[in-house]
Amino acid sequence: MIDLTERYGPWAVVAGASTGLGAAFAEELARRGMNVVLLARRATLLEETAAGLRERHGVSVRPVTVDLASPDLWSVVSAATDDLEIGMLVYNAMYDPTGRFLEVPLAEHLKAVAVNCAAPTILAHELGRRMVDRGRGCVVLVSSMAALQGIKVFASYGAGKAYGLILGEGLWDELREQGVDALAYVVGATATPHYVEMQEAASGARPTEAQLAEVRRAGSEAVAAPRTPEQVAAALMPLLDRGPRGYSHPDDEARAEADARRPRREVVEAMGKMTSLVWG
Amino acid sequence: MIDLTERYGPWAVVAGASTGLGAAFAEELARRGMNVVLLARRATLLEETAAGLRERHGVSVRPVTVDLASPDLWSVVSAATDDLEIGMLVYNAMYDPTGRFLEVPLAEHLKAVAVNCAAPTILAHELGRRMVDRGRGCVVLVSSMAALQGIKVFASYGAGKAYGLILGEGLWDELREQGVDALAYVVGATATPHYVEMQEAASGARPTEAQLAEVRRAGSEAVAAPRTPEQVAAALMPLLDRGPRGYSHPDDEARAEADARRPRREVVEAMGKMTSLVWG
Repeated sequence: MIDLTERYGPWAVVAGASTGLGAAFAEELARRGMNVVLLARRATLLEETAAGLRERHGVSVRPVTVDLASPDLWSVVSAATDDLEIGMLVYNAMYDPTGRFLEVPLAEHLKAVAVNCAAPTILAHELGRRMVDRGRGCVVLVSSMAALQGIKVFASYGAGKAYGLILGEGLWDELREQGVDALAYVVGATATPHYVEMQEAASGARPTEAQLAEVRRAGSEAVAAPRTPEQVAAALMPLLDRGPRGYSHPDDEARAEADARRPRREVVEAMGKMTSLVWG
Repeated sequence: MIDLTERYGPWAVVAGASTGLGAAFAEELARRGMNVVLLARRATLLEETAAGLRERHGVSVRPVTVDLASPDLWSVVSAATDDLEIGMLVYNAMYDPTGRFLEVPLAEHLKAVAVNCAAPTILAHELGRRMVDRGRGCVVLVSSMAALQGIKVFASYGAGKAYGLILGEGLWDELREQGVDALAYVVGATATPHYVEMQEAASGARPTEAQLAEVRRAGSEAVAAPRTPEQVAAALMPLLDRGPRGYSHPDDEARAEADARRPRREVVEAMGKMTSLVWG
């Protein structure tokens, strides 16, 4: 297993870090001795997460309250981190305007473009430049199974995650020549607070076993039991230097490979049946 | 073959329409009887293209000078088209900040996000809403073989085209229930003025046969002789109601399918060898 501080340097930036998967990434990095900068919008949650990390792992933690959709993103992050050697970026933040594309206000989709496309581009560019100058570092762009095909109800979210997926793969090819690792990390269903909230907010109740069986017959395995954020964060660690793409679970990789051999229409329809069933 | 005006309505919007592939799409639609709104930045070129279309096909053409990266995009397009029944959107515009990701200024990448992600989202949302209200229409998001894997030298361009690819597929699944076709159209190498310019501006001369043979051994077929814009525009027509995804040439589809069965590392490396060879 990689010694993170030795290979990449003493500090990591985790974007979208106050709860759920982002907090789990920060926890895993801190457990492995990295100091962490936490970026998120909600100051109180962020302070709590930071305090917990310091207490449990004895590392330095710097919480930075920032809206990842803001055009000032880099000036805020830069002011808060310019004195640090940032050796890792884990871009986990995301914004998903759940609902039919035309029914969701346009401003929501554009906010998703800002958080899912522009922000990782900004942070990868600014922090990546500094990593290359030092000849070491690691950029992880967290993507999703939703990025692998069009996805009803989450159309602009899936698109934004596809942006990160392909950007991460491209960065792998460019940065590896300069001593910096890069990886697009494809995450399957994860039981984050956000995921649970979404399910509870869904139009219907949770799907019945008979409905799930119908979805499985349609060919989607996306409704497999979600992993925990801790499992997903731990599964990233052995993949950091194995770009261009990694999956949070072998089942998801197998499903992606199987889907890649099927007609697109079937793949998109199967995903759509699943999202329609659960989220209406 | 679909009767465009009957199935979709009398007017089409083509974004990125002054030259190259966009002009060829506009030509093909006009030839099939559609009136066209042309969106592009360069007013003089746009007027020339519009005059040519009117003369050759006897259709109405409305050129609209607009920067597709502008936050005012919709207010400009709306003011210029609110009296028209727009039955088709062909989003062909793109911006590609060619060069190593870290060497290209960040502002260029963010402009690419605006043109390749935000603008198609805005136009698909606003025009798509009106199509659904009328119960007919067609949204085509033009993507690229560069969207299918990370791509060195074009990292943020490939990412932006992946956004459009996955958004187009998702729209197909949502809009077909409401009488509107949608399609992500994956275009391979096309001999547009932009393509030729890029090749000429490349650091070296055109690759030799020996170099190309090496690239082919690496597994990339992307250096096959490019098609003409007219061929690519004509090939779209039979695919309009066959979403979620179509390819401009069966060779490209076959290559995409073959690549989907190979390890990602191999696919990204092969693409990188090709772009490095041609564009340095």
